[in-house]
Amino acid sequence: MNDVDRFARAAASAFPSYGHLTGHRRGELLRAIAGRLEANGEAIIESARQETSLGLPRLQGELARTCNQLRMFAALIEEGSWVSARIDHGKVDVRSMLRPIGPVAVFGASNFPLAFSVAGGDTASALAAGCPVIVKAHPAHPRTSALAGQAIAEVVPEGVFGLLFEEGYEAGIELVKHPLIKAVGFTGSLRGGRALMDAAASRAEPIPVFAEMGSINPVFILPRAMQERGAEIAAGLHTSVTLGVGQFCTNPGLVLTTGNEEFAGELATRIAATPAATMLTPAIAGAYRAGVESFASIANRRAFVDGEGGAALFTTNAENFLAHPELMHENFGPSTLVVECDSRARMIEIARALEGQLTVTIHAAEGEIDEYRDLLEILETKAGRIVFNGYPTGVEVVPAMVHGGPYPATSDGRSTSVGTRAIERFARPVAWQNAPDAVLPDELKESNPLGILRMVDGHIKPG
Amino acid sequence: MNDVDRFARAAASAFPSYGHLTGHRRGELLRAIAGRLEANGEAIIESARQETSLGLPRLQGELARTCNQLRMFAALIEEGSWVSARIDHGKVDVRSMLRPIGPVAVFGASNFPLAFSVAGGDTASALAAGCPVIVKAHPAHPRTSALAGQAIAEVVPEGVFGLLFEEGYEAGIELVKHPLIKAVGFTGSLRGGRALMDAAASRAEPIPVFAEMGSINPVFILPRAMQERGAEIAAGLHTSVTLGVGQFCTNPGLVLTTGNEEFAGELATRIAATPAATMLTPAIAGAYRAGVESFASIANRRAFVDGEGGAALFTTNAENFLAHPELMHENFGPSTLVVECDSRARMIEIARALEGQLTVTIHAAEGEIDEYRDLLEILETKAGRIVFNGYPTGVEVVPAMVHGGPYPATSDGRSTSVGTRAIERFARPVAWQNAPDAVLPDELKESNPLGILRMVDGHIKPG
Repeated sequence: MNDVDRFARAAASAFPSYGHLTGHRRGELLRAIAGRLEANGEAIIESARQETSLGLPRLQGELARTCNQLRMFAALIEEGSWVSARIDHGKVDVRSMLRPIGPVAVFGASNFPLAFSVAGGDTASALAAGCPVIVKAHPAHPRTSALAGQAIAEVVPEGVFGLLFEEGYEAGIELVKHPLIKAVGFTGSLRGGRALMDAAASRAEPIPVFAEMGSINPVFILPRAMQERGAEIAAGLHTSVTLGVGQFCTNPGLVLTTGNEEFAGELATRIAATPAATMLTPAIAGAYRAGVESFASIANRRAFVDGEGGAALFTTNAENFLAHPELMHENFGPSTLVVECDSRARMIEIARALEGQLTVTIHAAEGEIDEYRDLLEILETKAGRIVFNGYPTGVEVVPAMVHGGPYPATSDGRSTSVGTRAIERFARPVAWQNAPDAVLPDELKESNPLGILRMVDGHIKPG
Repeated sequence: MNDVDRFARAAASAFPSYGHLTGHRRGELLRAIAGRLEANGEAIIESARQETSLGLPRLQGELARTCNQLRMFAALIEEGSWVSARIDHGKVDVRSMLRPIGPVAVFGASNFPLAFSVAGGDTASALAAGCPVIVKAHPAHPRTSALAGQAIAEVVPEGVFGLLFEEGYEAGIELVKHPLIKAVGFTGSLRGGRALMDAAASRAEPIPVFAEMGSINPVFILPRAMQERGAEIAAGLHTSVTLGVGQFCTNPGLVLTTGNEEFAGELATRIAATPAATMLTPAIAGAYRAGVESFASIANRRAFVDGEGGAALFTTNAENFLAHPELMHENFGPSTLVVECDSRARMIEIARALEGQLTVTIHAAEGEIDEYRDLLEILETKAGRIVFNGYPTGVEVVPAMVHGGPYPATSDGRSTSVGTRAIERFARPVAWQNAPDAVLPDELKESNPLGILRMVDGHIKPG
């Protein structure tokens, strides 16, 4: 019995009792995990700094975010209405609510050693739903993973949490294929995510995979906005492109304009002046360098900084862009491509040609968006989040957030990995028909002892 | 350009405007479809009678149900809160709601020529969500399909609805693999559903498949309930097993008891006295006959009616049942298997061994369920609906209904094909960040012009 099997069996054994804890009790556990992470914050941050080359302020912010996420889900389940309770009185009495799906496998990301890793959003939302979690630690930050894992393991009941350190592809596939695993959360590359999707789909019992695989986060700059504040947008874009050495899934890798030399010049100057910086891993640095070379063979390399993680700016025209679909592939790092469109129609054509994205951004002057309603309609079908007059990096941890998007941004555009909707990935509806009140979960008892919002006979009733 | 491609392109063209109709307008369309179905009800029912051999009362009921479903979804989208609107004011303003996923392919069932076919629940929920629909008509009832399709086509805008009549497997796979199709609804066999799941998972852009593939709907009769009302349960079970010649996905094909000769005798007498009856298609009748033969080679054939669709009762002990997993396969028709468990522990062992089910049923005497809390905990993870002291056939069309369940009952146990939650299969969350109020959908505008329930800054606010 290897670790995968041992953890999966323990998780399955722990599931019935963990899945039936009250929302208040599970909320307490999530808050206790956040408390332990904070109590051990210095060691965790120092370990992450050594393992990832990310700066202290960034890692401090990420730890705070990780704890916020845990407390956001705690508040959600303590309140309790997330279960979408429904009651229909009638000749036949039917009551239903969301219940946890079972043990969940989580694959942490390289670029967020805390917030999208061992104690990150996938783990927080799965534990909140009532699912045991087995995390495969990212090999780029094993010590940080161990410290975060310790904070969880010290708090949750036996079997509810497992942490795998096996390196390599095989252990991950084995975990996804284990019959006791019922869903998967993943943050990483398209290649890695698709491999897990294929493994899950080929199981005797296929299971859902929620993989966030990144995107190029196109930024559309409409002509009047460009005229009015091109230089300001160039400055903002530069910050967004180079933030964290460009190692964000919301990094803006594509900019659509109707052409503006001043803007391109300003952006080039800023990119050229960006210091080179160590990336997360040598493999990521190598892949980024290769991506830059590949782009340079197709588009115009307008600015480039030599050295590891050196920023890069490419420009090209719409025709060349549309002729080379490889320019739509994500190049993970501080690089962006400005495509100059010779007409409004070209911009629309490119919008239509886009693959699924986590975000799209539009810069528009006052009232200008009204002339681009058709563009907006297209973009709504392409992304999980539409940003106005801003930049895609920075994903607010708030209930309304959508951090998802049509494939290949994620495996399932019907889901989000940030925001309270993330809990719905790990839950399934169950109905009780003509059940004695004593047998029903508290959420469905006639007297509504938890005081939650419910739909009763088709009408929504606040608690 | 064949029909699949033509319909898919038309659906994709129609999607932006159809997907942006108001809930009130789409509700009107659904109500108009129901009205047309009723206006042409006589011809539709007569056609279905000829094509399916189902009786008039059943078909009249099914037409009423089909229209109820359309009106239930109309009411849901007219009210509007189903979109799960969320607003977070903050330094960054984030607002999100569910939006339609895009063109949906629907595969009708053989056994419900109206309610789970062309104008059935999948079509109603997809149209309600704002998705164009392309239905592949079931070859067992082409004229009924054409009549139902006419009722839809006369009402919805050009391109929003397409009806394919091509027979055979290939056209269905081609439809699921068409790049403009974004989701699939299916009701039918495990083999057919799994083929569509595999086709969808192997696409360049994988898409979700919501396949309802049936189950054996186990019925647990606890000892005191058996003692108190064994004969009554036998009568109820007989009705449920033989209803509609057993051609329901909720047909109870497995009964677990701790042994009771009087009960088995009563059920055998009733099964033996059931008239044979024509089944939906010769293929279904042939498969049922073969299933009965196969069961007879493993279990004791306690009662059997000769002739097409003849009812059958098998009995066996728990040991033999657990040794022959093929006894857990659905035999679509009026047949059931009673497994006598020599102990409570055996009953639990069988519960644990069950695959995913649409329903499980428990018959318990007053207070008896308290002694079987462990059984209930297991069953909750095995089925979408738990029926108490009743029978699984008969799926109420009410908002709370769950007609789904873990694989292989369905492709995705997180979904239901009946009840208002069915609309969520065809929708995805989209967020707007710092959007001008004029650009936002009405559901997300600050003033809440639609008066819907929303989550604002983490708190639920009734409209």
